[in-house]
Amino acid sequence: MKILLLNPNTSQSVTDRIANAAKGVAGARTELVTATAPRGVPYIATRAEAVIGGAVALEMLAEMHTGVDAAVIAAFGDPGLGGARELFPIPVIGLAEAGMLTACMLGKRFAIVTFSQSLEPWYHECVAWHGLRERCAGVRALGGSFRSISDVQDEKEALLVELAQQAVNEDGADVVVLAGAPLAGLARRVRDRIPVPVVDCVEAAVKQAETLVALNPRKAVQGTFARPGAKPCIGIAEPLARWINHE
Amino acid sequence: MKILLLNPNTSQSVTDRIANAAKGVAGARTELVTATAPRGVPYIATRAEAVIGGAVALEMLAEMHTGVDAAVIAAFGDPGLGGARELFPIPVIGLAEAGMLTACMLGKRFAIVTFSQSLEPWYHECVAWHGLRERCAGVRALGGSFRSISDVQDEKEALLVELAQQAVNEDGADVVVLAGAPLAGLARRVRDRIPVPVVDCVEAAVKQAETLVALNPRKAVQGTFARPGAKPCIGIAEPLARWINHE
Amino acid sequence: MKILLLNPNTSQSVTDRIANAAKGVAGARTELVTATAPRGVPYIATRAEAVIGGAVALEMLAEMHTGVDAAVIAAFGDPGLGGARELFPIPVIGLAEAGMLTACMLGKRFAIVTFSQSLEPWYHECVAWHGLRERCAGVRALGGSFRSISDVQDEKEALLVELAQQAVNEDGADVVVLAGAPLAGLARRVRDRIPVPVVDCVEAAVKQAETLVALNPRKAVQGTFARPGAKPCIGIAEPLARWINHE
Amino acid sequence: MKILLLNPNTSQSVTDRIANAAKGVAGARTELVTATAPRGVPYIATRAEAVIGGAVALEMLAEMHTGVDAAVIAAFGDPGLGGARELFPIPVIGLAEAGMLTACMLGKRFAIVTFSQSLEPWYHECVAWHGLRERCAGVRALGGSFRSISDVQDEKEALLVELAQQAVNEDGADVVVLAGAPLAGLARRVRDRIPVPVVDCVEAAVKQAETLVALNPRKAVQGTFARPGAKPCIGIAEPLARWINHE
Amino acid sequence: MKILLLNPNTSQSVTDRIANAAKGVAGARTELVTATAPRGVPYIATRAEAVIGGAVALEMLAEMHTGVDAAVIAAFGDPGLGGARELFPIPVIGLAEAGMLTACMLGKRFAIVTFSQSLEPWYHECVAWHGLRERCAGVRALGGSFRSISDVQDEKEALLVELAQQAVNEDGADVVVLAGAPLAGLARRVRDRIPVPVVDCVEAAVKQAETLVALNPRKAVQGTFARPGAKPCIGIAEPLARWINHE
Amino acid sequence: MKILLLNPNTSQSVTDRIANAAKGVAGARTELVTATAPRGVPYIATRAEAVIGGAVALEMLAEMHTGVDAAVIAAFGDPGLGGARELFPIPVIGLAEAGMLTACMLGKRFAIVTFSQSLEPWYHECVAWHGLRERCAGVRALGGSFRSISDVQDEKEALLVELAQQAVNEDGADVVVLAGAPLAGLARRVRDRIPVPVVDCVEAAVKQAETLVALNPRKAVQGTFARPGAKPCIGIAEPLARWINHE
Repeated sequence: MKILLLNPNTSQSVTDRIANAAKGVAGARTELVTATAPRGVPYIATRAEAVIGGAVALEMLAEMHTGVDAAVIAAFGDPGLGGARELFPIPVIGLAEAGMLTACMLGKRFAIVTFSQSLEPWYHECVAWHGLRERCAGVRALGGSFRSISDVQDEKEALLVELAQQAVNEDGADVVVLAGAPLAGLARRVRDRIPVPVVDCVEAAVKQAETLVALNPRKAVQGTFARPGAKPCIGIAEPLARWINHE
Repeated sequence: MKILLLNPNTSQSVTDRIANAAKGVAGARTELVTATAPRGVPYIATRAEAVIGGAVALEMLAEMHTGVDAAVIAAFGDPGLGGARELFPIPVIGLAEAGMLTACMLGKRFAIVTFSQSLEPWYHECVAWHGLRERCAGVRALGGSFRSISDVQDEKEALLVELAQQAVNEDGADVVVLAGAPLAGLARRVRDRIPVPVVDCVEAAVKQAETLVALNPRKAVQGTFARPGAKPCIGIAEPLARWINHE
Repeated sequence: MKILLLNPNTSQSVTDRIANAAKGVAGARTELVTATAPRGVPYIATRAEAVIGGAVALEMLAEMHTGVDAAVIAAFGDPGLGGARELFPIPVIGLAEAGMLTACMLGKRFAIVTFSQSLEPWYHECVAWHGLRERCAGVRALGGSFRSISDVQDEKEALLVELAQQAVNEDGADVVVLAGAPLAGLARRVRDRIPVPVVDCVEAAVKQAETLVALNPRKAVQGTFARPGAKPCIGIAEPLARWINHE
Repeated sequence: MKILLLNPNTSQSVTDRIANAAKGVAGARTELVTATAPRGVPYIATRAEAVIGGAVALEMLAEMHTGVDAAVIAAFGDPGLGGARELFPIPVIGLAEAGMLTACMLGKRFAIVTFSQSLEPWYHECVAWHGLRERCAGVRALGGSFRSISDVQDEKEALLVELAQQAVNEDGADVVVLAGAPLAGLARRVRDRIPVPVVDCVEAAVKQAETLVALNPRKAVQGTFARPGAKPCIGIAEPLARWINHE
Repeated sequence: MKILLLNPNTSQSVTDRIANAAKGVAGARTELVTATAPRGVPYIATRAEAVIGGAVALEMLAEMHTGVDAAVIAAFGDPGLGGARELFPIPVIGLAEAGMLTACMLGKRFAIVTFSQSLEPWYHECVAWHGLRERCAGVRALGGSFRSISDVQDEKEALLVELAQQAVNEDGADVVVLAGAPLAGLARRVRDRIPVPVVDCVEAAVKQAETLVALNPRKAVQGTFARPGAKPCIGIAEPLARWINHE
Repeated sequence: MKILLLNPNTSQSVTDRIANAAKGVAGARTELVTATAPRGVPYIATRAEAVIGGAVALEMLAEMHTGVDAAVIAAFGDPGLGGARELFPIPVIGLAEAGMLTACMLGKRFAIVTFSQSLEPWYHECVAWHGLRERCAGVRALGGSFRSISDVQDEKEALLVELAQQAVNEDGADVVVLAGAPLAGLARRVRDRIPVPVVDCVEAAVKQAETLVALNPRKAVQGTFARPGAKPCIGIAEPLARWINHE
């Protein structure tokens, strides 16, 4: 099966991190395809950027969904996920969704641990959108700035481990979700320094994509995720506009 | 004061409906400015279209916010509202938000009544995003198709009144919110045929915009709606990209 | 239009504070009428006093509602609001309600900041009654006593600003609501020392009253706010007893 | 021990119903004292009447609490309960509270079944105030009018049984609470015609009052139910005014 | 009436504590019967032990329910309570349930105070199962180990009082529930050192059992607590197996 | 990797159904091991049976967990899951948990569709325990009896499809979870007759078990799922007693 790892950020280096983490867990028959956003921001962090990134994710999916069996929107916060699930016939999984739902099977309440406080509001809205507030022990994020998005996981490794420990000790987290595509691959490295299970969202997303492909679910033809009727668009990227208009 | 009525849909006829309803309630010193989306869909109805429309709303605001005192994102569902509130220094109000919060002052639970079932999932997500599920008695929408978005309120007037009556009788609604910019102006016409107060979202939004301007709140410099730090964008409409990058 | 500012407390000096703050934002065509409770407590602070004050508010409204277009029950906690909305044909707005709903348009979560811890339980119940717990970041109140209810906002100004800052820094508030009629007018003075928008409840209530009058909603004849049927009372203030009995 | 059954309604005939039902379950050493509201409405049914009745209940308690070991506010909806619990050193129990909490020990979700739809909004607010929405399967009330409040349980017996059966069959109720003092004593009569346990609120309240007296809890001197500090009142019934002012 | 105090733990010394506390409040006509689990753990503390203890409680009830009028499952956490309420025709009350519901009549929010942090997760799940999270101000438990389960209340008395004070001061508790059968009898001793009402769960449970017997509710024949149909079991304690199979 | 499919029911025929469905989706390197409860009921349906079955599941896991990489408790309702997750070092997944969390990735709200109304209360409690009420559109179950648990899926196929259609049309379900081990394998057969994705819980559970093994999470040594300290048991199955006592 082919799984598309769609990075709605413009950072190729983050796409590489995603690809590496994904390879480590992908099944023998899984082929991974990656894509980096051709437009947008280097990394989505705010509500505004999530809207922009969500639109970009839909454009990318319109172009690329036909050649793959499932797609992962590889930014924690899941920009465009609801819309993607409406529009396209293949399973589409969000990074946050995969990380959080997988964490639910390893404990009662998970903490979201991430590298920048600017992400907190968006992550809180993401938890709420998924209806998982009861399962979330909190979001903990590093203050301060970082040198580069591609190496933030190396630069901040020790601080992130400490933050995870605080989430366990002070917030009562049973599981830690390391959040954000730039942290892909970190979980394995810090696994033994955190006293509860740690979830790598990219790893989780790849396995969840494989799960959905294995289950072979039909595309909804009723309910809130049935494909919407044709509608003409103006000024929208061609492939997406054509798909929305059933052309 | 100047209030921008921003229609994130591409239908000029709907903008006209909005402008007319707004004029009816605007204060003597209020100047109304309207804008119609230069790109997007004729009317936003789905989660996917909301993401696209949200990005368009941000682009429009980046261009137009400097000349006005407040802006209304005039599509029920409030596309791009969270991001707009982060980015821009003026008050930005959503149509749904204005309609629902105003309704809260006229009863305990409001019903959302609208003209197309395709809008329901998006409206439900909007209610949840605003944290108002406890106040919402339900969303009721007409099935079937309609001839044109600009005249749907005339074509369906009797059916919408009936739907509002059902919301009162069967869902226990204390107030009815007529939802969607295409219904702007309908509330006054049907007011006496519905046994509870009826809220016109456009009217509510204009008065709420005036309220916020009168209160003269400062732009947050802390908290989750402080303006995000500068960030370079690629492939984003110029004015928005410059604003995001603090240029 | 005429708006009644009804102070269910017996402190004339607080009524004056309310009137002053209201004048600052009232529209050109708005005439303000004030009234101070003829019986009750100097300032309502507890659940018991809220019940007493609620009954007094209903008595006052029974006497005065016929001459005005809308009324504000000008005590945070909104004593008697539900009952008033049932009984009278004009819009009746609560101070807390107006402050909180207005705050909802300036951020996601608001903090309630007030001058006495004795108010906390009542304010918490008020937030819950309005179904706004999801939007409330917390209630913060000053400990210790104060010299006089009419000057508490001057005496405690610095401490209240500090409390508001804590609400932003520690509770994650996006907006601050300065709660309680005795704080009317304070928001403008401290606006620049608090890093998020600050809402003055009296200002908000006046504008919301104007909004509702502008919308011209009908009185509910069905639903839970339809006027109750006639019922004879014993030992109740004459105007209220007559109104309840449809005389 | 002495238990005060305080009827905040002015109907002596309802007080007699209450007294009769109470006698049937009171312990051997329990002495029952009854009181009927000297002012107010014949039976509280609306939010407005609940505020008036709540103030009356406080006045009655101020006069009578010193001679008894516990008091029951014998109107479903529990008017004035929060304030009473603040002010007075003896346990005060609400009729609704006693009925609902007792029902919680007989199943997961209880239905509230009552004789008049006018009571529904108040009862819903009561359930919410007690934080018991998760346990409540719904409120079901008879439409139409009734001949007299004192005999409504006889007049409507068959219809109330039918309503209870619907609550079980359609709402999934595990227990039925027959709500409202005018229904006191009905539960025993209809017990075998309803397929789940039926709770008589007056019976429950008497036993709960005995329970609290047996537990001999101290009056809170901290927390939100500590007695408020002294405060002067104007125009309030003497005994209550003196009690509030610690005279 | 006969009330069975069923200790699903194997500690006879804890059963004695339970019996002593119960005697102090039982009515003149109440006969107390005690039973100690013949198999299981000395004191249930974890989710795993709660499942084991729940099965043991059902076995004990199958043997003993016919001779009594009501039963108390005397372990906080209420192991097996839901199942017991389905199976047996007499009222069955849980220790936690009785303590928490009784506390609800003494304030708005109760704190659960207990002697070992190992109990916390189970207690949190118990609060949630009962739908009482809105009423619970928190669970506070002592860290460290204790010498013996039978004397832990003596050994830790001062620390438990301190914990209760913290629950009042820091968590806003209006009432304190001393949780766990090993603390039976402690409440009376520490009553005057804690500034809010303190509930002894065993005392509460005995009085609630008496309350339910006095109300004489029928066994549900519909709803989710009707007795399940006959079903053959293998390898289950004889009396329980026979009862489940309606033999 | 080796995955244990643990049937806590005593029906070997159901275990065979489980094994067949599991084989259809298991990865090439996955070895499936099955086990049928040596004691208990033919199929768990009630709260009482869930407690018994939960204890049996723990006994089985104590014996078998050492030889496998992960285990599935293959009864919808997840008996003993919390306890199992505390006690054992391998991932343990519940059938309901796997089905519901997988469904969350295919839509917003899932319906649970099952073959017997006797299961409803337990399933509702299961949804609540997992904190997924917000995601659950409802539980729909067939009334009436069935011939045999092993063939109920064949006997009731048409009715179950109809029930699923109702869940989509009337409850707004985006996804259908066919609930209960006896329905294992049915989803593939009826997939095209239901207009939304259908989840087979056994298939989902196998893939989720593979996911967790691939992620290789550590066993918690802190938080609420750390292994409890040693404790002596009496009268408990040997392997479980030894494991609980760290022998």
